[in-house]
Amino acid sequence: MFGARCLLRALRRCSSAPCPKHPQAVRLSVREAQEAQEAAADVKVQGWVRSVRSHKEVLFLHINDGSSFESLQVVGDPSLEKRDLTFGSAVEVQGKLVKSLHRKQNVELKAENIRVVGPCDNLAFPFKPRERQPLEYYRQFPHLRCRTNTLNALLRVRSEATAAIHSFFKDNGYVHIHTPIITSNDCEGAGELFQLRTSNKVSEPGENPHFFDVPAFLTVSGQLHLEVMAGAFTHVFTFGPTFRAEKSQSRRHLAEFYMVEAEISFTESLQDIIQVIEDLFKTATSIVLSKCPHDVELFHKYVSPAQKGRLEQMLKNKFIIISYTEAVEILKQAPETFTFQPEWGSDLQTEHEKYLVKHCGEVPVFVINYPYNLKPFYMRDNEDGPQRTVAAVDLLVPGIGELCGGSLREERRDFLQSRLESFCTR
Amino acid sequence: MFGARCLLRALRRCSSAPCPKHPQAVRLSVREAQEAQEAAADVKVQGWVRSVRSHKEVLFLHINDGSSFESLQVVGDPSLEKRDLTFGSAVEVQGKLVKSLHRKQNVELKAENIRVVGPCDNLAFPFKPRERQPLEYYRQFPHLRCRTNTLNALLRVRSEATAAIHSFFKDNGYVHIHTPIITSNDCEGAGELFQLRTSNKVSEPGENPHFFDVPAFLTVSGQLHLEVMAGAFTHVFTFGPTFRAEKSQSRRHLAEFYMVEAEISFTESLQDIIQVIEDLFKTATSIVLSKCPHDVELFHKYVSPAQKGRLEQMLKNKFIIISYTEAVEILKQAPETFTFQPEWGSDLQTEHEKYLVKHCGEVPVFVINYPYNLKPFYMRDNEDGPQRTVAAVDLLVPGIGELCGGSLREERRDFLQSRLESFCTR
Repeated sequence: MFGARCLLRALRRCSSAPCPKHPQAVRLSVREAQEAQEAAADVKVQGWVRSVRSHKEVLFLHINDGSSFESLQVVGDPSLEKRDLTFGSAVEVQGKLVKSLHRKQNVELKAENIRVVGPCDNLAFPFKPRERQPLEYYRQFPHLRCRTNTLNALLRVRSEATAAIHSFFKDNGYVHIHTPIITSNDCEGAGELFQLRTSNKVSEPGENPHFFDVPAFLTVSGQLHLEVMAGAFTHVFTFGPTFRAEKSQSRRHLAEFYMVEAEISFTESLQDIIQVIEDLFKTATSIVLSKCPHDVELFHKYVSPAQKGRLEQMLKNKFIIISYTEAVEILKQAPETFTFQPEWGSDLQTEHEKYLVKHCGEVPVFVINYPYNLKPFYMRDNEDGPQRTVAAVDLLVPGIGELCGGSLREERRDFLQSRLESFCTR
Repeated sequence: MFGARCLLRALRRCSSAPCPKHPQAVRLSVREAQEAQEAAADVKVQGWVRSVRSHKEVLFLHINDGSSFESLQVVGDPSLEKRDLTFGSAVEVQGKLVKSLHRKQNVELKAENIRVVGPCDNLAFPFKPRERQPLEYYRQFPHLRCRTNTLNALLRVRSEATAAIHSFFKDNGYVHIHTPIITSNDCEGAGELFQLRTSNKVSEPGENPHFFDVPAFLTVSGQLHLEVMAGAFTHVFTFGPTFRAEKSQSRRHLAEFYMVEAEISFTESLQDIIQVIEDLFKTATSIVLSKCPHDVELFHKYVSPAQKGRLEQMLKNKFIIISYTEAVEILKQAPETFTFQPEWGSDLQTEHEKYLVKHCGEVPVFVINYPYNLKPFYMRDNEDGPQRTVAAVDLLVPGIGELCGGSLREERRDFLQSRLESFCTR
């Protein structure tokens, strides 16, 4: 990579001057080669062979190195073909980067030399060129599945989304905090916890059996730690792994997952929180769409065809805001029969969330001001009746349901105290 | 934050046009206020009071909000003083941002209104203005200590360093991978592991006592997972929490810490790895120095005075590369008496590492080509004798000793196989 950058700069200044550190071929990633604006001699590309086609007059290769969804086309003399130049093999191709005559690609690499760095036994290799398999098949090969288009694209999208989230908060003045993974608090008690013990099972007589002298768990949320930080930094965020020891095998439950959490001090309006959520969602989505268009296209084509139009809708429109009370009214007037009867004071079920999103035109919907008794102790009482609603917000999105939530935190000591007391006497 | 950005743009275009979303005062962070290039009317700053000085003619406040080491000076009419406007209280000040006549600061805020959002009981608050306490004192107040200059600066530096590491890899074409935290592999067996169990202690008869059906641990390294990814992406990195259940209470041991790990495919030279390490180190250090000059100054002044010159040395000079064999020769010829006698084939101790760094002029030193038997099974045999050295590198830095390490991975199946067999028959 460094070699490549170094030479790219040299090329721009004087195309014949070799980089002093790399007197021979300059290494380019597939993406760098594809984005090159001009032809370049003596270039080197490394990657894995996605296809080999040998004609009488010409040899065609497609090379992928994970930097781009699209593979780089390599053309060469048939004499360059070798016995071990097969699908899946790792190769280094040296040659000239030239403008391609084919409209499918901008450039191609005219090979002068092809070296097979790592051969691939095609009988043992579980994937075949241009063969689509269900994800359950790929799951059997955790050490190789990231070579498939689907997993390769997924990991690139995840990497871009991660970077987009970090830069969104950084650009908006947030301080990044690594909240602890090992902790003794379980936030509002969000599900089953993983507890830790040392692998060295037997403790000496009289020795405390706990590594930290007290029971320790894997975090379910960094919120309470972030709230402490928000007493010294007005804008903080964390983006780390979170754990739930729940035995449910569903598409919506993972034992280990990543969660973005942010706290803003001096916030007195739910609108400020809604704005941050909407901006984060739109910024991250736009960045992924612009950086990984081919990867996203793959998912639109094979995984979730309806998602394409939805994303465009989401980005174009302002998200809708309705109150929990309005939401229940909409559900009560719905022509649909729900498994769970909608009722003021009860949680919104997934079927309700999906209906609300559809009702609002398949754009994301913020539902605000939930019943006091449905939400955790730290959410701020709206004082619209005796303990009637709190200043909470959940974002419901098409295809998923609840994606994220937030609240104004209760800062009034007497409110917090009386609520904690009512928990203790329950 | 968003309000502030929005208005800043409006101000640049026409200083009297109010932002449509914020018809009243524009919120600025302390840093934004300090960096403002021109005066601005109707500005709002929120933060915590670092000092109050009331004179007959004028009231001086210093406000800090965690965005900057330096506090913002607020000046106002003494009539604005209130009983609860004390050190530690949370305030919102609205007024005019004007050029300061004092050379200590660029701007100051002429207060028109001061609102105490959260009072602070000065008798109960553990910190006093301009009072320096040892870190052990701060440790008693984990919910408040991030308000102190030291912890505040530390967290800002950590946030900038984290962002710098992410952007270094992103800018150089690496794909970010979240390697699993919960895992059943322990890499090369790097120390004691934390094992997981569910908090729900009693398992039903016949039920598997393990949540994942097999024993599960907290990761000690993402390396083996990254190596799998490096079979599909030529450049990958991870930067996540790592765990060791070691009972040592030293400055060099933590049960939970963050580690940067990267894998590059098609690398055939240790020099490429050395280049990445040196570039990462220098880039991250330069960014922190330029983004947090006052924070770093604090540590140079009170925590580690020698560090300032060392950092300048490190950034100016190319790091030194010596072989392990040379290192042992240098140590053998040293006039110093070591607790551990230096000897070819033995690990370098911290005392040896410190001497080598001093010997080389207090700049970072790469030590390469370690004895085969000192290093884990996956490092590449240099074939300079029967199992004599491997292509490994450790970076030793002034004041610390070993900071990071790397190696060429052994890709030859027969080498790996015979080495694993020799482990099994040991």
